[in-house]
Amino acid sequence: MSRKQRIGVIGAGRIGKIHIENLMKNIPNAELKIVVDVDLTDELRDWISNLGISKLSTDAKEIFLDNEIDAVVIASSTNTHSTYIREAARSKKHIFCEKPIDVDINQIETTLSIVKEENVRLMIGFNRRFDRNFKKVQEMVNSGEIGTPHIIKITSRDPAPPSMEYIKNSGGIFVDMSIHDWDMAYYLAGSDIEEVYARGEVLVDPNFSLAGDIDTAVAILKFKNNALGIVDNSRKAVYGYDQRVEVFGSKGCVIADNESENTIRLYTSKNIQTNNIPYFFLERYRASYAAELQYFFECLNYKQEPKPNGEDGLKSVLVAHAAQKSFKENRPVKISEIKP
Amino acid sequence: MSRKQRIGVIGAGRIGKIHIENLMKNIPNAELKIVVDVDLTDELRDWISNLGISKLSTDAKEIFLDNEIDAVVIASSTNTHSTYIREAARSKKHIFCEKPIDVDINQIETTLSIVKEENVRLMIGFNRRFDRNFKKVQEMVNSGEIGTPHIIKITSRDPAPPSMEYIKNSGGIFVDMSIHDWDMAYYLAGSDIEEVYARGEVLVDPNFSLAGDIDTAVAILKFKNNALGIVDNSRKAVYGYDQRVEVFGSKGCVIADNESENTIRLYTSKNIQTNNIPYFFLERYRASYAAELQYFFECLNYKQEPKPNGEDGLKSVLVAHAAQKSFKENRPVKISEIKP
Amino acid sequence: MSRKQRIGVIGAGRIGKIHIENLMKNIPNAELKIVVDVDLTDELRDWISNLGISKLSTDAKEIFLDNEIDAVVIASSTNTHSTYIREAARSKKHIFCEKPIDVDINQIETTLSIVKEENVRLMIGFNRRFDRNFKKVQEMVNSGEIGTPHIIKITSRDPAPPSMEYIKNSGGIFVDMSIHDWDMAYYLAGSDIEEVYARGEVLVDPNFSLAGDIDTAVAILKFKNNALGIVDNSRKAVYGYDQRVEVFGSKGCVIADNESENTIRLYTSKNIQTNNIPYFFLERYRASYAAELQYFFECLNYKQEPKPNGEDGLKSVLVAHAAQKSFKENRPVKISEIKP
Amino acid sequence: MSRKQRIGVIGAGRIGKIHIENLMKNIPNAELKIVVDVDLTDELRDWISNLGISKLSTDAKEIFLDNEIDAVVIASSTNTHSTYIREAARSKKHIFCEKPIDVDINQIETTLSIVKEENVRLMIGFNRRFDRNFKKVQEMVNSGEIGTPHIIKITSRDPAPPSMEYIKNSGGIFVDMSIHDWDMAYYLAGSDIEEVYARGEVLVDPNFSLAGDIDTAVAILKFKNNALGIVDNSRKAVYGYDQRVEVFGSKGCVIADNESENTIRLYTSKNIQTNNIPYFFLERYRASYAAELQYFFECLNYKQEPKPNGEDGLKSVLVAHAAQKSFKENRPVKISEIKP
Repeated sequence: MSRKQRIGVIGAGRIGKIHIENLMKNIPNAELKIVVDVDLTDELRDWISNLGISKLSTDAKEIFLDNEIDAVVIASSTNTHSTYIREAARSKKHIFCEKPIDVDINQIETTLSIVKEENVRLMIGFNRRFDRNFKKVQEMVNSGEIGTPHIIKITSRDPAPPSMEYIKNSGGIFVDMSIHDWDMAYYLAGSDIEEVYARGEVLVDPNFSLAGDIDTAVAILKFKNNALGIVDNSRKAVYGYDQRVEVFGSKGCVIADNESENTIRLYTSKNIQTNNIPYFFLERYRASYAAELQYFFECLNYKQEPKPNGEDGLKSVLVAHAAQKSFKENRPVKISEIKP
Repeated sequence: MSRKQRIGVIGAGRIGKIHIENLMKNIPNAELKIVVDVDLTDELRDWISNLGISKLSTDAKEIFLDNEIDAVVIASSTNTHSTYIREAARSKKHIFCEKPIDVDINQIETTLSIVKEENVRLMIGFNRRFDRNFKKVQEMVNSGEIGTPHIIKITSRDPAPPSMEYIKNSGGIFVDMSIHDWDMAYYLAGSDIEEVYARGEVLVDPNFSLAGDIDTAVAILKFKNNALGIVDNSRKAVYGYDQRVEVFGSKGCVIADNESENTIRLYTSKNIQTNNIPYFFLERYRASYAAELQYFFECLNYKQEPKPNGEDGLKSVLVAHAAQKSFKENRPVKISEIKP
Repeated sequence: MSRKQRIGVIGAGRIGKIHIENLMKNIPNAELKIVVDVDLTDELRDWISNLGISKLSTDAKEIFLDNEIDAVVIASSTNTHSTYIREAARSKKHIFCEKPIDVDINQIETTLSIVKEENVRLMIGFNRRFDRNFKKVQEMVNSGEIGTPHIIKITSRDPAPPSMEYIKNSGGIFVDMSIHDWDMAYYLAGSDIEEVYARGEVLVDPNFSLAGDIDTAVAILKFKNNALGIVDNSRKAVYGYDQRVEVFGSKGCVIADNESENTIRLYTSKNIQTNNIPYFFLERYRASYAAELQYFFECLNYKQEPKPNGEDGLKSVLVAHAAQKSFKENRPVKISEIKP
Repeated sequence: MSRKQRIGVIGAGRIGKIHIENLMKNIPNAELKIVVDVDLTDELRDWISNLGISKLSTDAKEIFLDNEIDAVVIASSTNTHSTYIREAARSKKHIFCEKPIDVDINQIETTLSIVKEENVRLMIGFNRRFDRNFKKVQEMVNSGEIGTPHIIKITSRDPAPPSMEYIKNSGGIFVDMSIHDWDMAYYLAGSDIEEVYARGEVLVDPNFSLAGDIDTAVAILKFKNNALGIVDNSRKAVYGYDQRVEVFGSKGCVIADNESENTIRLYTSKNIQTNNIPYFFLERYRASYAAELQYFFECLNYKQEPKPNGEDGLKSVLVAHAAQKSFKENRPVKISEIKP
């Protein structure tokens, strides 16, 4: 048995905390040595020390300069990802980084070339690939159970919009929200996306217009293998966090429906009722966050290249840009038009 | 192709009308010649003539004396079944008769011996055997798909109790209501019932006590092949006509759930809703009434013995009596104790 | 009560026979007087006379010249629809006509102006509007149960492609197959379609390419009320006739799933199995054919304008042409570009 | 905030290990000080020290004599439960003990009187009460959502029988396996069981006969509130660990179905397939084990009486004995006949 991987975490916000908890409880072969956050409130200090983590800092250099640390988990704000990935790579540390790598394609390409140069492993946090349902769908498609994929359908709707403050800096729905779906589409189809046509409207809240964004969107994807894709997004599904996929192929169709809060049906004189689907992304995807980190550390242990890697991280951003351009110009846009 | 069977119907009440409509519309190889009912109201006359039936009478003799008539459908009141079956048999007509043949075991046996003597065919109207779900379950059990049956479960609940007037003359829940379930149990298990333990309570309406009856009942069955059965009944399921079966065996389990009014799910901020199950027996079992008559006339055409036959009709009444006795004496009762 | 409507039927092919059977069995207030078909085979003559219809002819004039006939059901080949509608209108007969009215927009407009001039009623046979599920979804949307519609999704896949002979003369997938979906989209959204982007591929059978057609298609619709629509079609879903709709709105989401062959689940050591969805359009939509005709004759009796009417019939053809143009030019096409 | 409860665990077998892991990871207000097991293998020592537990012993006295320890978790073999409960109570420690307290009614009563005398809290490990589905069903029944309960149905089937060695010392199916169901019945009905009729057969494996046991059983329960109960058990459901409940009442019916391995449906040319239900009790009930311990420590913190308590533990054993007697004598047996 290999020795434990020593880890530093950068960023202890909402997602960072999930990773920290998973590192402490669910990843036996990882040893979390230090947590770095630019804003070390007393509350955060308490939370961290209660978990039994002794070292914390506001300076990521403490990780990069520590020769004992093997790998870094980056969960800081998006605009810092590129910089931290590069510094980590230069320090010869393996990297797990939240999506997206960057919103700028040139920045991503420079970052990936450094990662390659330094020969460290980089995994991007598309956690939905590790959801028990979507992962199984991908395995079924991959094994040929439904034959050649013809149509991939992804429904991805948030229960409620974030603040308008957030929206203004989000880069728009196709970058901020649909990015998971571009990755999922590409993951399920087993083929690159070649062209996208995206259409959007402001139907949930007129403030989205003021922020230069939309709240409801649909897109058609054309894959290299000629399969077709459909994505639909909304910022507000009042019944919960609606997350479904369907892959239709020459030998059948596989559908992953939403998770349920329980298995109960209530029969009344009025109708039959079941509990809503999970409302919050944490309820729905909690297990996937643990699974992706477990997988990352298995890859380190067995010296394997993790997936989704930096290349995958680039691809989803390219599609996001193409979708954005398609929406603005109301025409299908090839991914090749986006290449910097 | 054989010539059409010529038919007379006795009894044009609720069930009789279903059979008459099916004979006119859904049984191409039957020709309905005459309808007999003791109470030929103007409304009934209109209803019958609108269907294009020219002959009607208050006297069943008109059927028995008509040499052109091949078969009779008996849907008159229960206390007339035995007499009409015998007269029909003596007139050499084949017989489809609503369940039960009689509530008296001796009467049934005498009737069946006459049917045998006259060598006519007799089918009893246990329509649920022709429900698309239960029929398919039986076929799956029969074909060995679930291996040897171990446990048979039947849920059978009415949406609302009939009038207390009806209850008083019904013979009690185990005869009036559960009789379908005894037949279903025996049909699904592919084995005779050997012993029954039945338990009942008055939980729906205290008037059942005054009528000497119960409104909620459960029973355990022991089959000759050592399988075990469970039946539960209620006179009032506010959500509809609850009709389910389950057969559990050595190689698996097959469950037939309720029918749905449609395939729609409504997701709201409160919960997920589906329409109720069918409320009325006609909504649920309409197709089974047509199917049983079609089958009956096929048997006549192909000169085959129909099932369920008179013997099957006797068996369910025997179990009903055993259940009644078990309930009264609060002990398991063997069917052999009931034999007259 | 009004007197029965006297009816002539033109066309006794597959769909015509369905209408004829429904007229004879399920429409009490209609009296089918005559069936016209250009190819009166002996088999067809037998089939018709067995139903008790005495008059048949190869010449539709026998209908148009018969003053006793109130209405005509047109189920002949598509290229005859316009002519028969015009002749029926000129003869002052109400008209039920199979979709589409015509593939040529000018022909449709001329036909509709004659219908208007003669002041007869015209209903187009978009039977899916009368499916118990889709009709209910439309009612729920219409009643505001899901708030304002944001996204309408329609999945419509055939179990197997028709012959290549048929395909060559079909007008292409967007006219021949998706036409039902354009009508459904417009029916469910309660708003006209303004723009369409359609994309298609040959994934099922390369012969579609030779026929100048495609076998797999997806489309995005933009409605006047700003809702967005998604349609996906395939000529071959090996598991059956896949027909689903979903309407997502500000207050919830309503989903109509496929019908089931029965309600049975089989639990085995390997997995849990349910029977396939209905394979053939007749199994799935049989009841909707009866329901649409019943509704048509109710409209005649109560002197109401039926829906979908000629205007609805025109709209779906306009969208079909726009989709076809969009596919050819790979760009979104406004319906207004199609107006003749 | 109260200080952490200090805990000792007795027994580190299959169930003990689950509790130990939960104490280390999922119960923040508990501090596991020592693990006691009679058979401290090297493997077990490793497993325990890897979790960061420093103290382990073969002698439970080390717990009882440690004044710093507040509570004990007993997961040793059944025949030691009574003794350990008594010693823990005498040492003034609160107790969480696996079911059953004892198979001997007199022993249970003596044990409970000591617990009472020493005024410590005792909770019995009926973990299924903490399953998300069954707990919710109980809350719905309790809140009156289905009105007065009329019929309670419990299906509880193991995926495969244990070894015959185990069976021989198990006390029989009604004590070993159905005990969870007696507790569940009483939990869901909100009323004591008054009488039971149990019936069993050897259908799975003839070796059960040799061991003086049965492998398939059904029972009818009569509750004090006049509701009726049905339980069915099998030692072998090839499709997995079948665990369902249903409560039918005056205002509706609530059904908790099995959990699913995922939410995927696969449509093929043959049928529609879903993954099996969880096969092993740990997959199905893992979360319930954590939930019951969390609840136990909340009760300690808030100085509340936990449920299910010793009295509840006694009741399920009484029903088990009554069921056993009923089976042997083939007659309904009152619980009052069992009182020592």
